[in-house]
Amino acid sequence: MNKLKLIQDMAVDNGAKIILLLMDGLGGLPLEPGGRTELEAAHTPNMDALTARSALGLSDVVAPGFSPGSGPGHLALFGYDPLENLIGRGVLEALGVGFDLQPDDVAIRCNFCTLDEQGRIIDRRAGRISSAEGARRVELLRQIQLPGVEVFVDPVKEYRFTLVLRGEGLGADIPDTDPQRTGVPPLPIAAQDPAAEKTAELLRQWWAEANKILADQLPANSCTLRGIAKDPGLPPFPEIYNIRAATVAVYPMYKGVAKLIGMDVIEHTAETPAEEFAVVKQHWDDYDFFFVHIKKTDSYGEDGDFAAKVGVIEAVDHALPALLDLQPDVLLITGDHATPAKLKRHSWHPVPVLLAADSARFGPPTAFGETGCRQGALGQIRHVDIMPLALAHAMRLDKYGA
Amino acid sequence: MNKLKLIQDMAVDNGAKIILLLMDGLGGLPLEPGGRTELEAAHTPNMDALTARSALGLSDVVAPGFSPGSGPGHLALFGYDPLENLIGRGVLEALGVGFDLQPDDVAIRCNFCTLDEQGRIIDRRAGRISSAEGARRVELLRQIQLPGVEVFVDPVKEYRFTLVLRGEGLGADIPDTDPQRTGVPPLPIAAQDPAAEKTAELLRQWWAEANKILADQLPANSCTLRGIAKDPGLPPFPEIYNIRAATVAVYPMYKGVAKLIGMDVIEHTAETPAEEFAVVKQHWDDYDFFFVHIKKTDSYGEDGDFAAKVGVIEAVDHALPALLDLQPDVLLITGDHATPAKLKRHSWHPVPVLLAADSARFGPPTAFGETGCRQGALGQIRHVDIMPLALAHAMRLDKYGA
Repeated sequence: MNKLKLIQDMAVDNGAKIILLLMDGLGGLPLEPGGRTELEAAHTPNMDALTARSALGLSDVVAPGFSPGSGPGHLALFGYDPLENLIGRGVLEALGVGFDLQPDDVAIRCNFCTLDEQGRIIDRRAGRISSAEGARRVELLRQIQLPGVEVFVDPVKEYRFTLVLRGEGLGADIPDTDPQRTGVPPLPIAAQDPAAEKTAELLRQWWAEANKILADQLPANSCTLRGIAKDPGLPPFPEIYNIRAATVAVYPMYKGVAKLIGMDVIEHTAETPAEEFAVVKQHWDDYDFFFVHIKKTDSYGEDGDFAAKVGVIEAVDHALPALLDLQPDVLLITGDHATPAKLKRHSWHPVPVLLAADSARFGPPTAFGETGCRQGALGQIRHVDIMPLALAHAMRLDKYGA
Repeated sequence: MNKLKLIQDMAVDNGAKIILLLMDGLGGLPLEPGGRTELEAAHTPNMDALTARSALGLSDVVAPGFSPGSGPGHLALFGYDPLENLIGRGVLEALGVGFDLQPDDVAIRCNFCTLDEQGRIIDRRAGRISSAEGARRVELLRQIQLPGVEVFVDPVKEYRFTLVLRGEGLGADIPDTDPQRTGVPPLPIAAQDPAAEKTAELLRQWWAEANKILADQLPANSCTLRGIAKDPGLPPFPEIYNIRAATVAVYPMYKGVAKLIGMDVIEHTAETPAEEFAVVKQHWDDYDFFFVHIKKTDSYGEDGDFAAKVGVIEAVDHALPALLDLQPDVLLITGDHATPAKLKRHSWHPVPVLLAADSARFGPPTAFGETGCRQGALGQIRHVDIMPLALAHAMRLDKYGA
């Protein structure tokens, strides 16, 4: 059973409009027994008022106990089962630096590392050189050319950079060369299937050149190749759901993920939630589905800054009337995973979901938070259920079966 | 997608410690409308206090409506999907009598039965002879020898006994010979695949000998062979979860199941919950995962003795501080299924789960019982989710995907 195919067969274009407002890492934890989560601690009068015409729920993003990376979190949100589909790390990293990845490109996440005179890795992160030091070495590596393909090298942060090969007939089934420990040389670049042999040969040439160029660049005198991957070729979101879909995001990675699944990416200069919402308003007539991505809830969660995460949620709430004024048929507010400030990392805790629509089974009004969502009319769902629920509440899904 | 493989890739050994305290058959039912379940009726001040720093939930062991046997209940608890994996009845029965089953052994659960002069079964349980009568006949059967294999026969209870063949090249794909009705002869011993042909031939020899020996032993003048099975070869628990794991159990079957999945089994003379907890304390430094099995909640449930089941729960609660003093990073309290005294049998009702950990999403403090668990922060889960959740709360699971 291919569930996406079933959904595609049911999806109708009735012109109803859906906003999916994502606060990255929204889910949280109380700092102490009896305390409140970030969302519960935030003063959110607009969201709280919205609960009177919403169904609330809690959602497991991937599966109980799984702490999703950004890739699986977003895939699940867009309805692609994250246990069956993965976006390779090289692809995510290239998207994260805003690289305009093409369907046949092979993307690689590289780490500068330190080799000793026998070629053994003595530091897998090259002393965590600064971003400036990393970028300077990336500049040197840009001189490497390879026969018959284009080569792109871009700095990421500190010791990390991306390498992309563009050409024909390039497979990506090549394991990482990082041995995950020191005292041994990098692993050989070895194709796992014949389709990747050409790529492996090109990468061996590139790596040999890179080692020559970096020879006098200690501590970053070599590099490892990781997450070698291509666009997974997911079926396009606008076709599955029969909807004109656009993304409003500030960070490149989220624009990139949206582009991978065929959503339009609206270019803008917005930074705050209010500015992002203004972009939605500006393009309101052009699309029926808007994915609006708020990043900083996650960033402050990762920093362990409970109060700052609360502040971002409050800024979103304060700006919310601008979205409500557009009178979307369905407004969904959720996260792609939890990032509790208490844990300073992505976590496995289920994420609150608010689905406002005339067709929702309203519960009693409550504060929008984990506790209220536990009691909500949506119950306990998984993130892959969110798109079908959004379409259904917009009357965009026909009956299944006769 | 092999979920255990995904978990194995994420599992890290950070030294955090987990106790899984299992009260067999914990879930219960109120005797009357408006009444309380066994767990709710029990006075459990220690568990109730623990809810303030726990996430609670209810768990379906296999699937809604499925009443699990002990095998599926424990497999699910240990994270092996009980719909995909089964421990054959012969194996479970051999483990239950404490037989030291080896990976290539073929284990069979046998029933004494009564045949008439035409060889038709007239009583499938041989008049339910006493355990002493059964054991006496088992003794007689021990004289049967087979070429090239070792043969073990052990009494179980009343008309039931186990037969184990040990040797090389023994398949187990042979259906039961019990026709499940009287008036017909036992079914022939027939291999379902060539790998089991040698076993079938040996069993035919054994059964012919057994009939000779039992000829004058009415009403137990023959036997049927059931649940012919081998160790299912499950991937080892300590490898999947990257954890040093040990079992503290009183009954042989639970030690046997733990051994099947590669857990260490701690030998001891403990009988009461307090004594079992003392064994955990004694071995605290040797392991990071302790499976502690309390049997009598189930036994009294099967007896229909509500008050005695309540008493066992209270004894566990009274002894609980000894486990809490060890300060495990995660303490899980649950059952392997419900055994409501009202029904005197295993049932399908979801089982209460208490997960105490600093990283849990605490709900408001409540009594530990089915009603409080229904409102809990863990929501409704399945037993196969329990291990991923336990590891996650111990920070022993890395992020899934980039």
